[in-house]
Amino acid sequence: MSQIRNPLTAPMMKKIIKVIEGKEKADLAILHGDIVDVYTGKIIKDHSVAVKGDWIAYINSDISQTIGPDTAVIDASGKILIPGMIDSHTHMVYYSAPWEAIRYLVPGGTTTIITEIMEISYTMGYNGLLQYLEALKDQPIKMFITVPPPISLSKSVYSITPNKSELKKLLRRDDVLGLGESYWQHILKDDKLYADLAQESLRLGKTIEGHTAGAHGSKLESYLAYGVSSCHEPVNADDVLERLRLGCFVMIREGSMRRDLEEISKINKMDIDYHHLAISTDGIDPGELITTGYMETVLQKAIDVGFDPIKAIQMVTLNPARHFRLDSYTGGIGLSKHADIVIIPDLKTIKAEYVISKGEIVARNGKLTAPVKKAPLPDTALNDYINKVSPAQFSIPCQKTGTVSVRVMDQVTDLVTRDAIMPMTARNGELNIDTTRDILKVTLITRQNKIVNAFIRGYKLKTGAVASSNAWENFGVLAVGVSEQDIALAVNHLLSMGGGIVVADGGKILAELPLPIGGLISKLSIEEIVDRLSQINKAAKSIGFPFPDLPKTIAVLTTPAIPFLRLSEDGLYDLKTNKIVDLITG
Amino acid sequence: MSQIRNPLTAPMMKKIIKVIEGKEKADLAILHGDIVDVYTGKIIKDHSVAVKGDWIAYINSDISQTIGPDTAVIDASGKILIPGMIDSHTHMVYYSAPWEAIRYLVPGGTTTIITEIMEISYTMGYNGLLQYLEALKDQPIKMFITVPPPISLSKSVYSITPNKSELKKLLRRDDVLGLGESYWQHILKDDKLYADLAQESLRLGKTIEGHTAGAHGSKLESYLAYGVSSCHEPVNADDVLERLRLGCFVMIREGSMRRDLEEISKINKMDIDYHHLAISTDGIDPGELITTGYMETVLQKAIDVGFDPIKAIQMVTLNPARHFRLDSYTGGIGLSKHADIVIIPDLKTIKAEYVISKGEIVARNGKLTAPVKKAPLPDTALNDYINKVSPAQFSIPCQKTGTVSVRVMDQVTDLVTRDAIMPMTARNGELNIDTTRDILKVTLITRQNKIVNAFIRGYKLKTGAVASSNAWENFGVLAVGVSEQDIALAVNHLLSMGGGIVVADGGKILAELPLPIGGLISKLSIEEIVDRLSQINKAAKSIGFPFPDLPKTIAVLTTPAIPFLRLSEDGLYDLKTNKIVDLITG
Repeated sequence: MSQIRNPLTAPMMKKIIKVIEGKEKADLAILHGDIVDVYTGKIIKDHSVAVKGDWIAYINSDISQTIGPDTAVIDASGKILIPGMIDSHTHMVYYSAPWEAIRYLVPGGTTTIITEIMEISYTMGYNGLLQYLEALKDQPIKMFITVPPPISLSKSVYSITPNKSELKKLLRRDDVLGLGESYWQHILKDDKLYADLAQESLRLGKTIEGHTAGAHGSKLESYLAYGVSSCHEPVNADDVLERLRLGCFVMIREGSMRRDLEEISKINKMDIDYHHLAISTDGIDPGELITTGYMETVLQKAIDVGFDPIKAIQMVTLNPARHFRLDSYTGGIGLSKHADIVIIPDLKTIKAEYVISKGEIVARNGKLTAPVKKAPLPDTALNDYINKVSPAQFSIPCQKTGTVSVRVMDQVTDLVTRDAIMPMTARNGELNIDTTRDILKVTLITRQNKIVNAFIRGYKLKTGAVASSNAWENFGVLAVGVSEQDIALAVNHLLSMGGGIVVADGGKILAELPLPIGGLISKLSIEEIVDRLSQINKAAKSIGFPFPDLPKTIAVLTTPAIPFLRLSEDGLYDLKTNKIVDLITG
Repeated sequence: MSQIRNPLTAPMMKKIIKVIEGKEKADLAILHGDIVDVYTGKIIKDHSVAVKGDWIAYINSDISQTIGPDTAVIDASGKILIPGMIDSHTHMVYYSAPWEAIRYLVPGGTTTIITEIMEISYTMGYNGLLQYLEALKDQPIKMFITVPPPISLSKSVYSITPNKSELKKLLRRDDVLGLGESYWQHILKDDKLYADLAQESLRLGKTIEGHTAGAHGSKLESYLAYGVSSCHEPVNADDVLERLRLGCFVMIREGSMRRDLEEISKINKMDIDYHHLAISTDGIDPGELITTGYMETVLQKAIDVGFDPIKAIQMVTLNPARHFRLDSYTGGIGLSKHADIVIIPDLKTIKAEYVISKGEIVARNGKLTAPVKKAPLPDTALNDYINKVSPAQFSIPCQKTGTVSVRVMDQVTDLVTRDAIMPMTARNGELNIDTTRDILKVTLITRQNKIVNAFIRGYKLKTGAVASSNAWENFGVLAVGVSEQDIALAVNHLLSMGGGIVVADGGKILAELPLPIGGLISKLSIEEIVDRLSQINKAAKSIGFPFPDLPKTIAVLTTPAIPFLRLSEDGLYDLKTNKIVDLITG
């Protein structure tokens, strides 16, 4: 049964009427604020809001009849009330348990999260997903997921991800709002499972979240043909316009993976309707979250780069609520909607003085005032799957003698790889690391203990190795190193922690973050995680790594989400042709 | 299971991709039109649309690869393409069978109808509703209903309307978009069944259509407390604004019951966001339908009274589609949406040259080109319920002698009644008709054969009687006459037709419209119905009736939808106090 989560009940309807009539008193009264009315796009001056239970029970210039001795009262004179903010596309799986992130999300004014959850699907399977969904429940804010369609370059991981009937069962849940993102090239190559899931999501009146990075014209339309209803991948105003015109809802991304708001703000010159536009983070990493904030920072940035403040507020409230069919109870300060309200000093300063979520004051002046729920997370450490490794397993054999042409993954930015065909000399039937030319070994160890070795340049390690179990849509272990010994050391240490991120050098571990929950999530506090990540990046830098964020750069080596050459369980994968390509090309 | 009707299927997704790739050819290609892109609020110049099956399969400036020898081609150069229009609130039960109305709806460009259906509920019960829903299925356009909450002033009719579990079963159907309108005063007085139904509709993610005529401030909010999500009753810009600000979607009414567009067009000075605004007809009577048209006339009027054409188009396409969660497949010209497209000569001339609905050309230059489906309608004539009457049954006894004060229904406009307390003299234990003062008898004969008699003035009949079985939310027989004999004649003739509208005088029937299906719907063609209605109004005028539309004026005598004094099975009903009031007041 497709149904919405926690709808207004008949008894609550009657209670709200009693509050309006003054026969029951409100739990909370917010007095004399200026309400940003996202429904009309205007400000309602000096208005008050009465709250009963989770719900807005009266909105008027005078709500005195609703106030009793036990009513908490907030004087909002001269302040602005905006609806609680919605992150419409995120990844709530950045190393920390969800409640750790929530501690920092809430004080900024985010009251609804719609998260992708593919990472849980790939690491902990169906039961892990169910357990994770339990952890998202009954938090101080609303948490929803989209169902992850399996889209790994490595098909064998589908033995871990939920099967079709489990995915369909997930789609029917009331905390599931649609089908999650799927990389378009991947789907256009193989839609067997996807088309069925897309049909089911549409049938249930739910959304299909897209991922159309770099797609245009007929390719874009071929992908949207699956009924894809949104995309968060446009990088400029023209991309946005092309998608909107085809009927696709667009989320402008501003988060740790990319920041597109400033470039896309050129759309303000186009004088178009913004109602199919939202702003989402696509994930904020823990360091950024605890230092810089979350949706409040994104909204502030939107205003700072020139979006009209009210339109920008609509883009993080009503617009995404409507897209996900949540507007019957959130996304605006309306009667019989959830009391999800943020009080800010003025329209251009997104600094929450109060955050009210589901009727409760959950944060005040940047401090969380509501308890978060801690829940058991799945106990599925990586060493349940992957055996210890030895240096010899990283050999790259070569039958040919003399100089051969080798396809090397070329890390040209912190995210993008291209292929570089480089001459290498086979010795004793193998190809070897060549630090003088920055040709290091990269290895993917799958959860089925398949080891795939290749070469990479651009990591610039002078010594040591790095390893991570946060290898997207594969979530085996990825490692890069200057010697097979260092790689084996890093990987085995990682396995001994049950998963994690490791920097090793000369037989020693320089830095580590244990991620024993599925090889993905830590049991540490978010502050400790941020500290460990900072140690990891410092250590990586100390052995030569040139990019700012090792965990992010290494994570994407295996994903079809980012171009061009990627590592899969079947070898090097060329996203331009969607084919496995040879390591030795001549 | 809550699900959407006819979603895009997996095989169709693949077919659309083949069309985009040119591997399969489109069924229809619309070339070089200027598309009104309701998603961005802009016009896309010189663009073409390929259609496969029901669906839009490619949108581009060049779609030549989709055109094959069997592709129908429309040259739309210099023309405007707008999405098919949606009537978001109507009553598709104005005397004619639905397919008769569809014949005239479609050529103007209406491709989706959301209709109230309370009239069917009151006259034909649950089985009648099911049968009627079958008749709405597989028509050339999309037809949806909202579930009618029982809201009659006469409780006994609830023996005919569906019970709670049947209503809930209806709510789950995919051709049911929400809970239908309910008169606010009525609900605030008695919400027992309503609150449960409202909860169920919200739980299923569906809408609750409201009816807030005259409600303001705390009364309005008390009614919206039930989660009511729309209203079509505002009569001026301030009414609209008050509702929008509370989070209520507003439909501006422009139809046979009222025309509010011109007055509400003052909202154009307020510079507000229009995305929670639609325009609906609330029903168009057959005469108006076949002479003046339907949504195309409404849209034209909106433009003529000063609404921006593109915003007005959004108000009859995307906005209502979004409100009813139909935007995943209609409401805009987008990829993988239904091909519901109207081709008009220019942006300010809403005159359909082609109407395309679900991919098919259903009308051209005002002529229907697709077959409508005729289906059996319920065989529940009124004489199955109501016995023949005799003049003596219309006696109004009075124990008092001499002059007494009598509450008379005072028809002050064609719709509104007030109460007039008038002195009358009892004779032989009864109160009598007094034509010299225009005090006539009005009678309601319920389907339980209860007869309720009262006095009415304002009908100004000099002779004869009028009777109708179209008495809202009661749907027994209403009659008004200058003598008990004439009333009995009119009623008995009406019953002999199985229901209908009758004007009688001096023992003769002057005009009649038989409505044998539930006492509500005719088996005649819509043209014949219009002719009969015109004869009825002419005949009514000939015996003194002063208003233009007898069937409409008499229909509302029993409804709580329109103020102030109404006739119920328990006697005169005062909507101001929501109470039965005495006929003899002193």
